[in-house]
Amino acid sequence: MNTHISDFTFHNPVKVVFGKQKIEQLGTHIPSDKKVLILYGGGSVKRFGTFDRVKDALKDRSIGEFGGIEANPTFETCMKAVEKIKAEDYNYLLAVGGGSVIDAAKFIAAAAEFNGDPIDIFGKGIGAGKPIESALPFGTILTLPATGSEMNSGSVISFKEKKSKVGFGSPKVYPQFSILEPELTYSLPKRQLANGVMDAFTHILEQYLTYPVGGMVQDEMAEGLLRILIKIGPDVTDERRLDYNLRANFMWTATMALNRLLSVGVPGDWSTHALGHELTALNGTDHARTLSALMPSVMTVRKLKKWDKLVQYAENVWGITEGTEEEKIDAAILKTIIFFKSIDMPVNLKEIGVTEADIDTLINQLEKHGNVSISERGDQTLDVSREIYLHALHTAY
Amino acid sequence: MNTHISDFTFHNPVKVVFGKQKIEQLGTHIPSDKKVLILYGGGSVKRFGTFDRVKDALKDRSIGEFGGIEANPTFETCMKAVEKIKAEDYNYLLAVGGGSVIDAAKFIAAAAEFNGDPIDIFGKGIGAGKPIESALPFGTILTLPATGSEMNSGSVISFKEKKSKVGFGSPKVYPQFSILEPELTYSLPKRQLANGVMDAFTHILEQYLTYPVGGMVQDEMAEGLLRILIKIGPDVTDERRLDYNLRANFMWTATMALNRLLSVGVPGDWSTHALGHELTALNGTDHARTLSALMPSVMTVRKLKKWDKLVQYAENVWGITEGTEEEKIDAAILKTIIFFKSIDMPVNLKEIGVTEADIDTLINQLEKHGNVSISERGDQTLDVSREIYLHALHTAY
Repeated sequence: MNTHISDFTFHNPVKVVFGKQKIEQLGTHIPSDKKVLILYGGGSVKRFGTFDRVKDALKDRSIGEFGGIEANPTFETCMKAVEKIKAEDYNYLLAVGGGSVIDAAKFIAAAAEFNGDPIDIFGKGIGAGKPIESALPFGTILTLPATGSEMNSGSVISFKEKKSKVGFGSPKVYPQFSILEPELTYSLPKRQLANGVMDAFTHILEQYLTYPVGGMVQDEMAEGLLRILIKIGPDVTDERRLDYNLRANFMWTATMALNRLLSVGVPGDWSTHALGHELTALNGTDHARTLSALMPSVMTVRKLKKWDKLVQYAENVWGITEGTEEEKIDAAILKTIIFFKSIDMPVNLKEIGVTEADIDTLINQLEKHGNVSISERGDQTLDVSREIYLHALHTAY
Repeated sequence: MNTHISDFTFHNPVKVVFGKQKIEQLGTHIPSDKKVLILYGGGSVKRFGTFDRVKDALKDRSIGEFGGIEANPTFETCMKAVEKIKAEDYNYLLAVGGGSVIDAAKFIAAAAEFNGDPIDIFGKGIGAGKPIESALPFGTILTLPATGSEMNSGSVISFKEKKSKVGFGSPKVYPQFSILEPELTYSLPKRQLANGVMDAFTHILEQYLTYPVGGMVQDEMAEGLLRILIKIGPDVTDERRLDYNLRANFMWTATMALNRLLSVGVPGDWSTHALGHELTALNGTDHARTLSALMPSVMTVRKLKKWDKLVQYAENVWGITEGTEEEKIDAAILKTIIFFKSIDMPVNLKEIGVTEADIDTLINQLEKHGNVSISERGDQTLDVSREIYLHALHTAY
């Protein structure tokens, strides 16, 4: 266990293009000799006109389209895109959507150039976990602030039959550019906005709520971004509030939450994500709703392990200055729950349809995916994960 | 004047390699077929063994060296390096030093490949201000946290005979990598440490202390970095405190202070730098000491223009919650002055040897360099700049 700031390499080559009417400049970001496959999801990008704007901007280019990427993008769907790429010789991808479409684009980009069976891009009980030597270049147009995928090199893919959700990452799958137009969020429904706030909030916590190593820049940034989401969360999730700055701050916060600036040199947790992925694989619950349903229980069950950082969280994020350390921690957990409820997120497993009978399945899947010693110290065993699931199931929050 | 977050492009491709014993990995960062010219300053990199470590790490490579780059690197010296590069066919540069050596490397990299007279890389009354089409690739090893030059694409070069100090910038002069070893700061004397804290502090203020446009991420980051410098400044400038985390936080804060994350989408000022450059050109005062000597007067003279941000600065950076807005501002200015004094920085122009007779010269030089309508609104005329110089000269701080 480190007691000082660890060595790190930070190298994030993504070009972020932020503001109004940026899709119209697409042509300047994609080399003119490329044949572009546009990837998208369920059709909202067509319904709200974004797709037409993309096609207009690329009207002199050779393009194709591949839709139907799921909210939790599946290996099976992605492999159909890979087939199309190989059959029609695309050499550039453009992801138009949220984190799901962007995560899919990363896997498709890597799979299209992979030497061998692309299943081996994944480890964790799925494939051989081989390194990615090259990937197709790609750009993104973000329609839903949430995952931060637009400015990082990670991706999570689902396997339908195996009921698995597994991540991979490689420096080869950084987007070349990401267009962030806050006004694209104006057509989002409340539930997706709340999911986005919650996902970003959890990303920050997973990089912050560990044990202190004295990373002052990382801590100040994490605390600042958490305060922003707490402040703007309720307004962001009011889908009628089409306020440019509000949405711009939301979008930039969600991107900054997971572009590696918060994680360099400090420990990370990611156990809430690991436990949450099994819930989504189990019954299809929205990713972000699994996180909010687990996080209060993670804080409570792991209180002693995360003590110092929970006190810091209470003081610096929630401004709690009165009481003993434990009183501060408990007050911060309560405020966290109230915040989640204020943006209509579930705060226990009953709310997302989990029953006692599911717990063994969840634990078995965690084991299958190699998540047997997780969290910042690697001491969250399956028994501890079971305790968290049970706490989240039986809590009266 | 914008009232909302402006459009921006953020693209910072610098690979930061942070931690212990990173110089030994140099060979992995520089392509093996490159002929490397090592640039350095006054010899302290040789005295403290850094140069030997660099040579050891590159012992199988074709290398050369060019030393003697000044604290305010001059065009004349840089052009000698360019001659050496052309005569001996170097195709990679390695800057080993602080911001001066890194700034020099940027100009040398651009000048070596410039089509025409390199003087035309500069505008502002010096040259034609032509764009840079290409530059030699280069990396840096940072020995003095201060300028942020290791993770940005800007540079300031001095012209001896013209008594001018002029900046230029181009995406072509981002370092390919920058090695940040906090332990390299252990040999720095107090004055250089204090200059570094002051330079970084001012960089943050110049991007923050303008008018509010609602950039919450930018404001939270700026305020967080300012709080860090205030907290660690006195300990950092105690040269006997060889504490790894302390120096690591200092180094990363100074880098983050000027890598464009604070400036995207929000107004910037940079008038304190403009006025300060003329002081250095006048009598050779350390760059950072010109900034501390001016900043309290900039805050005071421009109080009405910077009112809202000064209130925010008082509340969020200094924790001042009592009193009227003006009382908060005045208390924050006083605390700023006390902080500068606590790290032995001058807080007026008398302390750095300026007299009334110099003011006309300073104003003439500002005019010559095109700095006639500066600051965040472009309304800082030469008359206002004169008022600031005079205030800083006659203040009783």
